[in-house]
Amino acid sequence: MTDVAQAVVPGHVTGFFAKEPDEDPTVAGSIGAGLALSEGVTVSVRPAEEFGVVLNGEGLAMEAVERVCRTLDARVEVRGVTDLPLGAGFGVSGAMALGAALATNALYGRALSTNELVTVAHGAEVQAGTGLGDVVAQARGGATLRLEPGGPHENVLDGIPDRARVEYHVIGQRSTDAILSGDTAALDRAGTQALSDLVESPTLATFMEASRRYAREADLLTDPVRRVIQDVSAAGGSAAMAMLGETVFALGSGLSDAGYEATACDIDLTGARLERGPA
Amino acid sequence: MTDVAQAVVPGHVTGFFAKEPDEDPTVAGSIGAGLALSEGVTVSVRPAEEFGVVLNGEGLAMEAVERVCRTLDARVEVRGVTDLPLGAGFGVSGAMALGAALATNALYGRALSTNELVTVAHGAEVQAGTGLGDVVAQARGGATLRLEPGGPHENVLDGIPDRARVEYHVIGQRSTDAILSGDTAALDRAGTQALSDLVESPTLATFMEASRRYAREADLLTDPVRRVIQDVSAAGGSAAMAMLGETVFALGSGLSDAGYEATACDIDLTGARLERGPA
Repeated sequence: MTDVAQAVVPGHVTGFFAKEPDEDPTVAGSIGAGLALSEGVTVSVRPAEEFGVVLNGEGLAMEAVERVCRTLDARVEVRGVTDLPLGAGFGVSGAMALGAALATNALYGRALSTNELVTVAHGAEVQAGTGLGDVVAQARGGATLRLEPGGPHENVLDGIPDRARVEYHVIGQRSTDAILSGDTAALDRAGTQALSDLVESPTLATFMEASRRYAREADLLTDPVRRVIQDVSAAGGSAAMAMLGETVFALGSGLSDAGYEATACDIDLTGARLERGPA
Repeated sequence: MTDVAQAVVPGHVTGFFAKEPDEDPTVAGSIGAGLALSEGVTVSVRPAEEFGVVLNGEGLAMEAVERVCRTLDARVEVRGVTDLPLGAGFGVSGAMALGAALATNALYGRALSTNELVTVAHGAEVQAGTGLGDVVAQARGGATLRLEPGGPHENVLDGIPDRARVEYHVIGQRSTDAILSGDTAALDRAGTQALSDLVESPTLATFMEASRRYAREADLLTDPVRRVIQDVSAAGGSAAMAMLGETVFALGSGLSDAGYEATACDIDLTGARLERGPA
């Protein structure tokens, strides 16, 4: 028996959102929309003397992951490997939490359902203050509309039935926590409007347009991000800002057409999955 | 511009179910559980003078597909290609209906959401009498529990967070319509009990065991199917009957270990997806 289980969780860029607070972390979260990415995080879990998290070879503290493993009553080491940058709006912490839940469940035969594991990971992210909606979108895959907030027993999700190549260009880092804990009234108004526009016409073109308008109205654009988005538009493409990171993403070859160095991937259509259980 | 759009929809074997009738076909359906299969149907849609359905090169009538295209107001030819057998419990009609919905939406830029397209295909299947729950499970992918019936706006789904190789062995054909329109009280009791057992322990092992017990209690096993299932058990494997076909499916190498000719595939984890839109 190999005492290791592995899960793969897509990255996720949020185009727009509105906070939906609640005392119960499995009910709280956000509405909004985003894209799951084929670039993701591979999460391995194995039994350990002491709990620990390692990301790309370096030990670090990740409260959401620790909460997940405590809930599943497992003393494990959780190792993540990813090409996605941390703190740049790709949902790496959500991917680690969800991957830890899926792999730990398999490793110890906990016999929880998919919805239960997603609930555990979502609630842990909310409590840790590192995310409000990535986990449920990463679990589903595709271009996801979060129509109602919370974990799978509470939320309402829908999707844009399309696929696309996605490029991204990272300018810098940004703390999710700092923005989420500030005054978000303008964000919430703009996010609710953007979602309403997207529901009216659930296409990738509308998603990009609504995301761009949201970032402008919610006053989240930094100067460098604004410049990149304008350059992509000038080159005939469609770009927006990944919430919450100093990152621009575009459909197709929008960023490279505008002369930017960009990483290319696809919309992930599968969502989080167990890669292999203990053998 | 190539005037064709293509979708891929996984096959689906149902292990057990209980009918949940309703006057509204988007509310009606079934509860139960089944496995989406990596063996599926590739569905192409192109504009045509007259509506038509072609499966593996042969023209045929498929009411559910016709209903989908009428709802989407599109005069098209819908072509399916599959290695799955028809009328053997693999959800081929559901796959054709859902694939037609996804591809037609892309071809004509109808801008419907994923939930809306799944609702259209599910309702069409129910009205045609060719299926009650395949479509929603095929849309999601994986090992799906259908906890509440109907389309995506009505139902409640959950999943078994695992993956597996699946083998199947087809003995004969069977008409879904004939069984679904008869007295199903015994089926419904057994299906509700099986779902309750699976909710208690949502694992693939429980799914197979609950499916086997269901087929026995609902009195659906034909003698040849019973013999194959017993042979697989005797060889140390786990098999069940695909509802509603004269087909046996097993996890891993259960059927080939017992000496049966079997087709192998995997649980599909992605669900139905657009393969390419009009270029």
